[in-house]
Amino acid sequence: MTAPFGSRLRAALDAHGPLCVGIDPHAALLDAWGLGQDAAGVREFGLRVVDAAAGRVALLKPQVSFFERFGSRGFAALEEVLAAARAAGLLVIADAKRGDIGSTMAGYADAWLAAGSPLESDAVTVSPYLGPESLRDTITAAVRAGKGLFVLAATSNPEAPSLQTARTVDVAAGDDQTVALRVARDVTWPNGSAAFDGGLGPIGLVIGATVDRVELGLPDDALQGTPILAPGFGAQGATPEDLTARFGALAPNVLASESRSILGAGPDRLADTIDERAARYREVLSA
Amino acid sequence: MTAPFGSRLRAALDAHGPLCVGIDPHAALLDAWGLGQDAAGVREFGLRVVDAAAGRVALLKPQVSFFERFGSRGFAALEEVLAAARAAGLLVIADAKRGDIGSTMAGYADAWLAAGSPLESDAVTVSPYLGPESLRDTITAAVRAGKGLFVLAATSNPEAPSLQTARTVDVAAGDDQTVALRVARDVTWPNGSAAFDGGLGPIGLVIGATVDRVELGLPDDALQGTPILAPGFGAQGATPEDLTARFGALAPNVLASESRSILGAGPDRLADTIDERAARYREVLSA
Repeated sequence: MTAPFGSRLRAALDAHGPLCVGIDPHAALLDAWGLGQDAAGVREFGLRVVDAAAGRVALLKPQVSFFERFGSRGFAALEEVLAAARAAGLLVIADAKRGDIGSTMAGYADAWLAAGSPLESDAVTVSPYLGPESLRDTITAAVRAGKGLFVLAATSNPEAPSLQTARTVDVAAGDDQTVALRVARDVTWPNGSAAFDGGLGPIGLVIGATVDRVELGLPDDALQGTPILAPGFGAQGATPEDLTARFGALAPNVLASESRSILGAGPDRLADTIDERAARYREVLSA
Repeated sequence: MTAPFGSRLRAALDAHGPLCVGIDPHAALLDAWGLGQDAAGVREFGLRVVDAAAGRVALLKPQVSFFERFGSRGFAALEEVLAAARAAGLLVIADAKRGDIGSTMAGYADAWLAAGSPLESDAVTVSPYLGPESLRDTITAAVRAGKGLFVLAATSNPEAPSLQTARTVDVAAGDDQTVALRVARDVTWPNGSAAFDGGLGPIGLVIGATVDRVELGLPDDALQGTPILAPGFGAQGATPEDLTARFGALAPNVLASESRSILGAGPDRLADTIDERAARYREVLSA
């Protein structure tokens, strides 16, 4: 029996710091790295990132879209990248943003979280548009398997607030909160379980480093014990110092996700760039 | 140059009626059909549905999750099913519910809508949780390629209203509408283009047959020229008669999606069941 995802995540963050390296082989980066626009190209790209990240960071976050672009062959490439990451002792969050209902969502959970699945990862990102309660069975499945989920709550893209700051109003129940907070409250219920002993729970949230948590009505007390996957660092503008400046007491639970800012250094500078960035985050946290 | 998606959809609906048959090879159905829980099982399942549907209905809607469950081999099976559907002259909506931002979403558009992609479909379902405006480039890409999108707006599952009836309030702009309406208004802008000549546009919405459109604030005039993919028929409770009872003047633009109610008949009764159901919808529409 493997340890629960939250325990494994805590140990990895404590050992390596909060940097989470994206594997985003989009068209322009494949060109820049001199790789083909094909499954062999994304395979090579992914394996090089795994190789450079091994021993240097806690986590990798492959972006599934860039593998899916090449159909079944792209998925076969992703399977090789995932296997290499596992072999290197890296935790992997598959950034798939899947979201559906009932038995359909169970199919996605089988794909990404079931032991022995060719796409097995440590956690997967999921989307709550069908209603956060629609993820209940997926949450239960993840907890049982010792895996994690990261549910989209408040993302860092400029188009996000129109939907994520909408208010769920139920006058009779005295309910008036943002969609982002409603999601946070409806999906993180396992994190308070005594089984996780006051540490990190298995159900994380995606909360962009650059979002206005006041506008989103996301107070610290709704996020206790919850891993936070935070895009927005690096190319999108947040600095390592923002980790503590923006997340305060929650900073030790934040996974600082960078992709372009690291991958753009090119394959030859990749390991050094990861080393430098990882060290800066560790310094900020230990200051 | 192929005709725009809306024109092809209109012609197919006029020829065969509104029934859209789901390809949902979930675990229980694979067992019931005597097929294996593996890529060969979902391949055989999908090919049998294509075979039974050819010439009988306008559209198929494969549920990607049940193929993704088996990783790259499952996707290879889906590619074969999609090729068979194309060869049989069926329109295909890939039910993938993808949703992401910028270049990441472009990867998904390449996967599902680019000519010559192994996963090429006529349309794909997408999710607006990152903000409906985040889909702008994907919409443009679909229109240029002569393909379609179906954006999740108001789904038929019971957990959906908590999020989809939340209100996007902007006092300064005088804006106070549901998330579902905001999505509908923000993504269907291409449908009014003169290029589509008053017919169906390329950007559809997913609106469950059983949802309360009054509660959702989704008036008919926000849906003119918009294809509506409507789950909720069959096993979920809506009848063919509900097509006109619930959608009124919009009924000719509705794709009535059924999965379990047809697939549950088993492989031997499949073609007859499709024939019977398709005829009932045509009768309702022509009454």
